[in-house]
Amino acid sequence: MREISQDAAERHKAKMERRKAVQDAEVEGKTLEKGLLIVNTGPGKGKTTAAFGLALRMLGYGRRVGIVQFVKGAWHTGEKDALARFGDLVSWHAMGEGFTWETQDLQRDIAAAGRAWEKARELMADPALGLLVLDELNIALRYDYLDVNAVVETLKGRRDDLHVVVTGRNAKPALVEAADLVTEMGQVKHHFAAGVKAQTGIEF
Amino acid sequence: MREISQDAAERHKAKMERRKAVQDAEVEGKTLEKGLLIVNTGPGKGKTTAAFGLALRMLGYGRRVGIVQFVKGAWHTGEKDALARFGDLVSWHAMGEGFTWETQDLQRDIAAAGRAWEKARELMADPALGLLVLDELNIALRYDYLDVNAVVETLKGRRDDLHVVVTGRNAKPALVEAADLVTEMGQVKHHFAAGVKAQTGIEF
Repeated sequence: MREISQDAAERHKAKMERRKAVQDAEVEGKTLEKGLLIVNTGPGKGKTTAAFGLALRMLGYGRRVGIVQFVKGAWHTGEKDALARFGDLVSWHAMGEGFTWETQDLQRDIAAAGRAWEKARELMADPALGLLVLDELNIALRYDYLDVNAVVETLKGRRDDLHVVVTGRNAKPALVEAADLVTEMGQVKHHFAAGVKAQTGIEF
Repeated sequence: MREISQDAAERHKAKMERRKAVQDAEVEGKTLEKGLLIVNTGPGKGKTTAAFGLALRMLGYGRRVGIVQFVKGAWHTGEKDALARFGDLVSWHAMGEGFTWETQDLQRDIAAAGRAWEKARELMADPALGLLVLDELNIALRYDYLDVNAVVETLKGRRDDLHVVVTGRNAKPALVEAADLVTEMGQVKHHFAAGVKAQTGIEF
């Protein structure tokens, strides 16, 4: 273990006392409670994964979570099996038809996005819902499968205490503008570049 | 719904066929399976939350998950309650003493980090473990509570198929160098700046 002189320990204590004063003042200045519009975007990993982490946290308080997936279809994922443990607290809807390069059918992709958005609106009307995850909605918006202004207006008109998380690369400026919290996941290093494949428990 | 001309539909199909060929070739080029060393760093939100999302995914496959928290102490969080549903599959250890500006005691912080690291080594030795989350280990490394070279060597020497996620701001270069996957969470917009406080189900 590192040896700490008494002098170093005292300097540390003084510094941390000042830091705590700043921290306490900051916390005191924040008094609002509101349902947040959260956007996880960027090219890096963790956009959807963090949304599921948030779902887990909300479920820990016994709050209902709705999940609409705009790209993923009915395929099997670890997170879906795991969330099945929470029974009726989770309302899961994989409404996609798969990646656009799989369907190769623009009309079909647009129709799927429309159905997914209808499901999202339906879930938003549930007064018991604490969190709504709109997974890969940014993809549907980017390709204009849905009208961004209509989507943003509906999201802004949600119940005051409903949290919504939107994931996917290339979030549209109008959505970022409307959001309370926007995180850009940046890719520093990726194992795919080293020839490692997508593995169970990590990518799906 | 958007009107799509037959011409536009055919151009889309041709483009997506080319995209699928590229995608398939990429997937085929990736054949390795290995336990990943994953680092979630950066000033934005979602570092710890994404690690818990990954834990959820792994639990969906019935794999054991170990969690060691280097800063958080025994306080109550939604994710802890939620993961309690998975019984023995989750081994949770909140080994911190709280934020450094709360303890104001350098020697105590160093001792806590040492105990947390010992617990991490113990969990790594469990052959049934699929994922180990080392939450806020980057903080302990940044303040030199632990020796970064010793930590990196131990992480490198882990079992071939054990995935490890390290979270926290300011990941040290030696850790980034050793990692397979590094994501930098960037803050684009934060609700704290608008006076919104930390809320249940979102921040804890």
